[in-house]
Amino acid sequence: MKAFQDYYPEHLAHCYGCGRLNEHGYRIKTRWDGEQSLTTFSPAPFHTAIPGFVYGGLLASLIDCHSTATASAAMYRHEQRAMDTLPGYRFVTGTLAVRYVKATPLGPTLEVRGDVVEIQGRKVTVASTVWVDGTATVTGEVVAIQMPDDFGAG
Amino acid sequence: MKAFQDYYPEHLAHCYGCGRLNEHGYRIKTRWDGEQSLTTFSPAPFHTAIPGFVYGGLLASLIDCHSTATASAAMYRHEQRAMDTLPGYRFVTGTLAVRYVKATPLGPTLEVRGDVVEIQGRKVTVASTVWVDGTATVTGEVVAIQMPDDFGAG
Repeated sequence: MKAFQDYYPEHLAHCYGCGRLNEHGYRIKTRWDGEQSLTTFSPAPFHTAIPGFVYGGLLASLIDCHSTATASAAMYRHEQRAMDTLPGYRFVTGTLAVRYVKATPLGPTLEVRGDVVEIQGRKVTVASTVWVDGTATVTGEVVAIQMPDDFGAG
Repeated sequence: MKAFQDYYPEHLAHCYGCGRLNEHGYRIKTRWDGEQSLTTFSPAPFHTAIPGFVYGGLLASLIDCHSTATASAAMYRHEQRAMDTLPGYRFVTGTLAVRYVKATPLGPTLEVRGDVVEIQGRKVTVASTVWVDGTATVTGEVVAIQMPDDFGAG
């Protein structure tokens, strides 16, 4: 099953977090798992904060890209359209809030699970949680905004 | 002038964002600039979101490590102690909130400037802003917590 990010148009697929065309990046992949969205990710040994634990900036990055991808897929689903139909949707992050509930051990594969909280016009709010071995270590909320045609101007 | 991170004890200096001993990481360096703290950072060409703009996860990471370093330095200053005196202070992130006000162009050196909002017991709140060519593009707030001796347990 293709991931949400596999549907991003080529010129929008270079993101360090989730772009399939960024050879230096994390290339995270997000898919539906029932009503939730799911990303799995295995940090590298050097993605450390304090030795033995995952770097918080990576965890924030995972929540960010996982949530914007979920927002995109949610909007297609909301419109009852397949992700390979036009117009193509891509979301940027308006706000990112992350709570580090407990330290995340470095080693096991991480799961990021997202729930669509609200769709309001071009804004989608997604709540995402990082799980490791059945324990939630980080929670986050992203307000994702459907990318305007004039992205980056002004 | 040594950076705040240069005072981190060796076993706590491996952070992917700011550890001087992490050869794969960003190795960000933070110093006082008057009442504010200042980090400058030059993203790599592949630290991109949409082509031409800086990856939001990197911006979140910069705010995170810049703010925890500022928290540490603020606590020393609060106690009127030099940073090379004991006990050594190191802070972890409790919460991280980031607002992407506008897209951050990729190319120029970024400035992250921090203000200490509040010191309350072992908690320090820091407000940090990313500036590029005189324009504020991202604002953030971090609640940093002085690392407990049993960090990572439980």
